[in-house]
Amino acid sequence: MSKHFSTIAVMGNHEDQQALDSVRSLLEHLNSLGLTVAVSESLPTNALPGNTPQRTDDLLLDGADLLVAVGGDGTMLRAARHAALHGVPLLGINRGRLGFLADVSPEQMQESFEQILTGQFRKERRMLLRAEIYSGDAATADGLAMNDIVLKNRETGRMLEFQTIVDGQYVNTHGGDGFIAATPTGSTAYALSCGGPIVEPGMEAIVLAPICPHTLSDRPIVISSQTTIEVTLTQDDGTRGEVSADGKFVGELTAGERLNIVAAEQKVDLIHPQGYDYFGTLRSKLYWGRDTRNRNRRPID
Amino acid sequence: MSKHFSTIAVMGNHEDQQALDSVRSLLEHLNSLGLTVAVSESLPTNALPGNTPQRTDDLLLDGADLLVAVGGDGTMLRAARHAALHGVPLLGINRGRLGFLADVSPEQMQESFEQILTGQFRKERRMLLRAEIYSGDAATADGLAMNDIVLKNRETGRMLEFQTIVDGQYVNTHGGDGFIAATPTGSTAYALSCGGPIVEPGMEAIVLAPICPHTLSDRPIVISSQTTIEVTLTQDDGTRGEVSADGKFVGELTAGERLNIVAAEQKVDLIHPQGYDYFGTLRSKLYWGRDTRNRNRRPID
Amino acid sequence: MSKHFSTIAVMGNHEDQQALDSVRSLLEHLNSLGLTVAVSESLPTNALPGNTPQRTDDLLLDGADLLVAVGGDGTMLRAARHAALHGVPLLGINRGRLGFLADVSPEQMQESFEQILTGQFRKERRMLLRAEIYSGDAATADGLAMNDIVLKNRETGRMLEFQTIVDGQYVNTHGGDGFIAATPTGSTAYALSCGGPIVEPGMEAIVLAPICPHTLSDRPIVISSQTTIEVTLTQDDGTRGEVSADGKFVGELTAGERLNIVAAEQKVDLIHPQGYDYFGTLRSKLYWGRDTRNRNRRPID
Amino acid sequence: MSKHFSTIAVMGNHEDQQALDSVRSLLEHLNSLGLTVAVSESLPTNALPGNTPQRTDDLLLDGADLLVAVGGDGTMLRAARHAALHGVPLLGINRGRLGFLADVSPEQMQESFEQILTGQFRKERRMLLRAEIYSGDAATADGLAMNDIVLKNRETGRMLEFQTIVDGQYVNTHGGDGFIAATPTGSTAYALSCGGPIVEPGMEAIVLAPICPHTLSDRPIVISSQTTIEVTLTQDDGTRGEVSADGKFVGELTAGERLNIVAAEQKVDLIHPQGYDYFGTLRSKLYWGRDTRNRNRRPID
Repeated sequence: MSKHFSTIAVMGNHEDQQALDSVRSLLEHLNSLGLTVAVSESLPTNALPGNTPQRTDDLLLDGADLLVAVGGDGTMLRAARHAALHGVPLLGINRGRLGFLADVSPEQMQESFEQILTGQFRKERRMLLRAEIYSGDAATADGLAMNDIVLKNRETGRMLEFQTIVDGQYVNTHGGDGFIAATPTGSTAYALSCGGPIVEPGMEAIVLAPICPHTLSDRPIVISSQTTIEVTLTQDDGTRGEVSADGKFVGELTAGERLNIVAAEQKVDLIHPQGYDYFGTLRSKLYWGRDTRNRNRRPID
Repeated sequence: MSKHFSTIAVMGNHEDQQALDSVRSLLEHLNSLGLTVAVSESLPTNALPGNTPQRTDDLLLDGADLLVAVGGDGTMLRAARHAALHGVPLLGINRGRLGFLADVSPEQMQESFEQILTGQFRKERRMLLRAEIYSGDAATADGLAMNDIVLKNRETGRMLEFQTIVDGQYVNTHGGDGFIAATPTGSTAYALSCGGPIVEPGMEAIVLAPICPHTLSDRPIVISSQTTIEVTLTQDDGTRGEVSADGKFVGELTAGERLNIVAAEQKVDLIHPQGYDYFGTLRSKLYWGRDTRNRNRRPID
Repeated sequence: MSKHFSTIAVMGNHEDQQALDSVRSLLEHLNSLGLTVAVSESLPTNALPGNTPQRTDDLLLDGADLLVAVGGDGTMLRAARHAALHGVPLLGINRGRLGFLADVSPEQMQESFEQILTGQFRKERRMLLRAEIYSGDAATADGLAMNDIVLKNRETGRMLEFQTIVDGQYVNTHGGDGFIAATPTGSTAYALSCGGPIVEPGMEAIVLAPICPHTLSDRPIVISSQTTIEVTLTQDDGTRGEVSADGKFVGELTAGERLNIVAAEQKVDLIHPQGYDYFGTLRSKLYWGRDTRNRNRRPID
Repeated sequence: MSKHFSTIAVMGNHEDQQALDSVRSLLEHLNSLGLTVAVSESLPTNALPGNTPQRTDDLLLDGADLLVAVGGDGTMLRAARHAALHGVPLLGINRGRLGFLADVSPEQMQESFEQILTGQFRKERRMLLRAEIYSGDAATADGLAMNDIVLKNRETGRMLEFQTIVDGQYVNTHGGDGFIAATPTGSTAYALSCGGPIVEPGMEAIVLAPICPHTLSDRPIVISSQTTIEVTLTQDDGTRGEVSADGKFVGELTAGERLNIVAAEQKVDLIHPQGYDYFGTLRSKLYWGRDTRNRNRRPID
């Protein structure tokens, strides 16, 4: 049988026993199929089958043609950055609860895997965002995100004031808790909690969402992924912002510095089992169709 | 056994077979307890035990000391207006799904009823709103609502423009689809879909919520229930509004007329079984604590 | 001087004296430049310079290479449908107040026009939506919209229940006041009042926004403009919906019928004077940067 | 002339030259009226008329029967806490821009003051909130707020998870950026940016507003001011919250500790000039009635 993938790299949430159990059972299955595997060093050796080769995350994807991540969407975000940087497709196995990104359940894992190896899968390309903090002309920090780049206030109890520029055009001066630039993938994460729209994952779009904006008409904007976004603080009173990429600290932003956000050159290919249904995942995770508030606004008389 | 209630009036949703079954089983139980019952004429006689006395809704509550409504929250709204006008407390039996107002399930019906008859219940007073449409000094239509008074556009595709005055003080000129004045009870109904807050049921408060307001800062306002609200249209181009009370048509509102909204003199006493938990109902109906979106904004590294 | 446009069609808001004054002054200017003009029959002849040729709107654009609309954004929406159907670019002259679409003020009219004739302008392509109502396989009504296609309840006090399908994939079953499909142009109109995002005008995107949705997690979705949207009612109780395109009635939607929404084949080219600034228009119309609520969340101690 | 106030304490924003100028001019006026004054030590002596008595803020209000604060709403919040603790009414003079709390302009200052001294004013009582952090039975920190008590995440990129209990009844377990308990006064400040309603200032109510909640149905709740609110973290992973009162740091909240919020015993009496109009202030600060988005959803045909 010609297999679509032959060298499989595996990452997982090492703090979660259920994920570790799934990793072990996955590895046993992959071994039985005669596939070559490499496992992240961050997973405890005694949780793995004997003689499982382990590597640092930096080397994990060398020679791999598929990355499997086992855990929640947090594990998937980390895996996605590695997958994007190495151009390796990514499959996510969840911890028994449907994830936006990890959509194979442990129970379906074996069956899904066999289908995937015979080419029965759906490949879906997702964009990422790159953030760079500039002090003058020098980039002092950068980060890569599959969900979002977030600028927040580092101080308590004060608004952050900042301005946004899109492709050289001044957009707005904002006051509030901060600012999110989200990919379509990230539109269902933090940005959704801040009033942003859900954006179909295949769109080449970026959501710009202010966080708790002072001005009530300061609403989320959807722009093209071809755009360069620049954010600078407008206060000169020592207020500091904090930039993160998928929740990971990138650096501070102070007055005089500049945060640049663009679509990353790298993309990640998600591997879904057949029957993948984005809107089905939305329905499941947002409890659509199951709200039980009184639907009879007008009583029957 | 001294019983807290001896003459029981019963209403129900006559279009719902499950409600009719519950009514029959309820009546058999009430008969076995030797209670006097009267049943709404709107219920089909053949769905009731033999010799059940039936009356028009207008006479149903004469002499009754408890009204039991069987159905969804729509049935409860209708029953609540009758209960309020006659000063009779109201107990709601739902159709197997927790309601905001009908909180006794058919399964618990017998047990709850026996507890209630021995005084083991919680009485909770709820306010209602009264709407009156004035043409000059003459009230031309009025309505009573436990949830809300709603003004909406009667025309398609045009905004309704209207102004609100509270206790003689000009509040705002609004443009949009219309306007809701909701009781705390109604705060979890239509007003919640329009961005209004949840208001604890015991508060003496009215929520004023614009519907799809043109001005983004035109936000819901919570005012005292002691307040008189006046609404008038500000366009003189033939646009007509439509006023409803708990979804029931009250009348049209045209330029030159005035919609007055005040807390009704009447209140309704809801009878809850012991262990009633308002926030528990909210949690159940709003899926609190069960949203399954990715909670890991920051991946574990 | 070689002119970019030689035959100019003119429409205007015939109910607005200021618009009529601007039309007259525009026509005098166009005449003095030796351009050929044709004016909509809907404008009163006595408000025009003598011997101005007038035509029905259907014939107005035959042979024209530019359509000028004088009025508010409502006039522009009507003009845009004509412009799109005839493939003629559109320039908007407002009534002294910046419009999203009509961005030349009466004061700047002459100067802008001279620049535009010498090629100093910016052409911006905007997409439109087409709605079709199907009863079985037969389309019974259709409409074209630059802003939005809207489905609303025709009845009072009841929720509309409907389901949405996107490219054959089931999305959701919604309950509420209705549903908006908006172009990027329309994202700042009704959809914005319903919680939708602002979408950059050049994006090939459609905003699907529920109107006052019963389910609080039923949020706006942004999808590709290449998508076919199908909406059907899910109640079989006689509830009727009403479909409009840019606020103009298209037809009723009843159970068993289907509303189809797609990007129209036709597009419209807006002609802007140089210096056109979309975000500047947003800032002006949404009062960005001018909210005066207390910005000091933390007092100085 | 019998004066309503004879001993006037004055605070001001010492970082704002315009406020300092107003303080000087106010003091000269008060001196000319023969009133006894005392000025906060935080104001620079050289900005004051000669021989102005200065005191620490702690002693400033001893013997005073009116506190005048000059500055923005931030200065007013600080002044309000002092005024509440000493039971002295408070008058606010703004910096030329209407404030929610400081509603006398520098230009009207002299005239307003003379009216106020002759009893022509409106006294309006506002509630405050008290926050206490408990470690076991011991309160380890507390704060007083006229606007709001805020709990926020101290860490970057992770949600805060916490539960709320109201008068001993469990309300909800929340995930998000944090939580606001706001007075009616504070309902137009930070809580409004988080989707909370505007609450009429005289209401005895508290707004509980989650900040960027993960669960989309986790909406603001309005409860009685007689209620005790308890908040505890539900994660045991070292996540720390941060509690502030009117933006001023109160203390950290860690797992095992408890944040208690109640209406403060103290209230503050705001002194307004005659003609004070709360809704007028709202209209001015929220740009009501001046939104210029296209109001013509339906074009004229």
